Amino acid sequence: MSVTAAQGFTAAGIAAGIKANGNPDLALVVNDGPRHAAAGVFTSNRVKAAPVLWSEQVLKGGAVSAVVLNSGGANACTGPQGFQDTHATAEKAAQVLQGHSAGEIAVASTGLIGELLPMDKLLPGIEKAATELSAHGGEKAAIAIKTTDTVHKTAVVTKDGWTVGGMAKGAGMLAPGLATMLVVLTTDADLDSATLDKALRDATRLTFDRVDSDGCMSTNDTVLLLASGASGTTPEYGEFADAVRDVCDDLARQLIGDAEGASKDIRIEVVNAASEDDAVEVGRSIARNNLLKCAIHGEDPNWGRVLSAIGTTKAAFEPDRLNVAINDVWVCRNGSVGEDRDLVDMRYREVRITADLAAGSASAVIWANDLTADYVHENSAYSS
Amino acid sequence: MSVTAAQGFTAAGIAAGIKANGNPDLALVVNDGPRHAAAGVFTSNRVKAAPVLWSEQVLKGGAVSAVVLNSGGANACTGPQGFQDTHATAEKAAQVLQGHSAGEIAVASTGLIGELLPMDKLLPGIEKAATELSAHGGEKAAIAIKTTDTVHKTAVVTKDGWTVGGMAKGAGMLAPGLATMLVVLTTDADLDSATLDKALRDATRLTFDRVDSDGCMSTNDTVLLLASGASGTTPEYGEFADAVRDVCDDLARQLIGDAEGASKDIRIEVVNAASEDDAVEVGRSIARNNLLKCAIHGEDPNWGRVLSAIGTTKAAFEPDRLNVAINDVWVCRNGSVGEDRDLVDMRYREVRITADLAAGSASAVIWANDLTADYVHENSAYSS
Repeated sequence: MSVTAAQGFTAAGIAAGIKANGNPDLALVVNDGPRHAAAGVFTSNRVKAAPVLWSEQVLKGGAVSAVVLNSGGANACTGPQGFQDTHATAEKAAQVLQGHSAGEIAVASTGLIGELLPMDKLLPGIEKAATELSAHGGEKAAIAIKTTDTVHKTAVVTKDGWTVGGMAKGAGMLAPGLATMLVVLTTDADLDSATLDKALRDATRLTFDRVDSDGCMSTNDTVLLLASGASGTTPEYGEFADAVRDVCDDLARQLIGDAEGASKDIRIEVVNAASEDDAVEVGRSIARNNLLKCAIHGEDPNWGRVLSAIGTTKAAFEPDRLNVAINDVWVCRNGSVGEDRDLVDMRYREVRITADLAAGSASAVIWANDLTADYVHENSAYSS
Repeated sequence: MSVTAAQGFTAAGIAAGIKANGNPDLALVVNDGPRHAAAGVFTSNRVKAAPVLWSEQVLKGGAVSAVVLNSGGANACTGPQGFQDTHATAEKAAQVLQGHSAGEIAVASTGLIGELLPMDKLLPGIEKAATELSAHGGEKAAIAIKTTDTVHKTAVVTKDGWTVGGMAKGAGMLAPGLATMLVVLTTDADLDSATLDKALRDATRLTFDRVDSDGCMSTNDTVLLLASGASGTTPEYGEFADAVRDVCDDLARQLIGDAEGASKDIRIEVVNAASEDDAVEVGRSIARNNLLKCAIHGEDPNWGRVLSAIGTTKAAFEPDRLNVAINDVWVCRNGSVGEDRDLVDMRYREVRITADLAAGSASAVIWANDLTADYVHENSAYSS
């Protein structure tokens, strides 16, 4: 499963000693070919971690033969030394794997910002991981990239003769552009890097870019798509793009379902917007409203906080034509009191908010989480 | 003190029964002249409460003879009936006060969005409040506008022969444009409404517009400045503007100090920005970063979260030239590890974050609060 569900890939996940608690912290994913086509999407944060700066350069070549991922440290805001460490990581992997060049090895890191990685543990870890590479190593790799994730996250879609699989980690600092995550997708479809790039961007735009757990954008977000061509099959673009989007959608939903401290997953659907951009802007504004997030946590269908969030946007709408449903009860109609709020049943983890802008026919879905005392505790009790 | 510190004003604060718990909930401020010049600044939220829509119209005339304020209900998202109720409130006050027209009576409300006000209690309350109007009623008025505020907030500056005083309420939904607040300022200076308007806008831009407790913008924000001319003195503009700004600054600082659930007041100063707009954009981005707000609550000088917030802005800066100090310890230099974070003492309520963009000479100060389990509790345990 995971990154080894597609043919042509091996992976490993080990404990290299980067994490003080001894948990797995180093993953290696290797594309055994015959192709090494790849595409990548990275954080839009202007403060980018060293591995992001490195991997962006690697991806410009359109080829990735291996990915080294570590948890236990983000290697962000670590200056020239941090970049040298990422470079050394790629060089080490190239040396250990043989026949690969460092320029085709992507690196991804996640953990605390502002601390150098323990290279005396990481580099030997790469040697160890290389000895454990296996066509069944996908799950171990997915486990090794966890930080505050409570479960590891994998997804697979198999089509006629080819497969797209992947793994993801991400639990906090989840906001669009991208959400804080490391994701590696693999496929044995026989496609070039330009096709992979288009499919990946089409997919992330509608999936990872539309989850917003806590409004915070990471320095390390990395989503990679690697193609081995090992199936010998070249699917039609539309079918392939659908499969990539399905895997991304599945993983994105898992990220929301495991967000730090969350007790609710909130599906915000904005309908009848004048444009998709308007729908996304309104959805994100609702997703980031702390007061609403608290109300949802308290199972309070406080639609006034939805309207106050919509009112901060530049989207086209008339305040007295707005309608809002919570779990399908239209508690706000025409900008005012609608159905009885006591009809709203909010006992379950998933909460659906529908915002009708009555301004057009575009729509968008944004996923968010509630704001809880557990979130505060997880992010205040220790550095992460 | 408060709104009755300046000559020419009377005020009252009573319990009209709008709040179920019987606490004071209705305030009346009357300008006895000889002048009735006034200026107002209102929420930039596009979803505006009925009293905001009403008072915006009143202020267009440049004259206000009285203000009716209620807590216990925002009268926001209440449709045509809500607006009729505000209108009826002004008419009732005009009738009771005699000699005043409803078109010169401003109305302000605060409380839960989406519920109609109990007019059967509010209208008799106006009659009762009118009988209690007093030149010493300022404090009672300040108490009557409290919602989740733990203390009432007043400030006064007295100059040579004239005074500016005021009251404020606001504890949650505090974000720029404006913060969630009702504020009434009064002065006995003899000035016209155009001068008042300029002084008020100059002051709010640098004070109320730069506090951001929880990133949430209200539907009801109202800041009014009323001048009676009773001192017979016309101060120079600069001196008057300074006094108004000092009173606003004092009240804004009190709002942050009493924000819902907060345990820290965070003073974010952005320096060496290319422009004041850049400095404000960066300051607000830092102010709204939930992960950083949690870290500050945990007394963790997590400067990586400051950098990740700066990185989401469009301000001019180079990531490897950013410097960040927390309580004057430069924990981040040149975008990387700086002085030892263990040197940062965060035991006190006030925390100072300095972000040096190394891109120019402009600066701005934004005030924020930390994010706490108490904030979550206050905003999830019941509707507000």
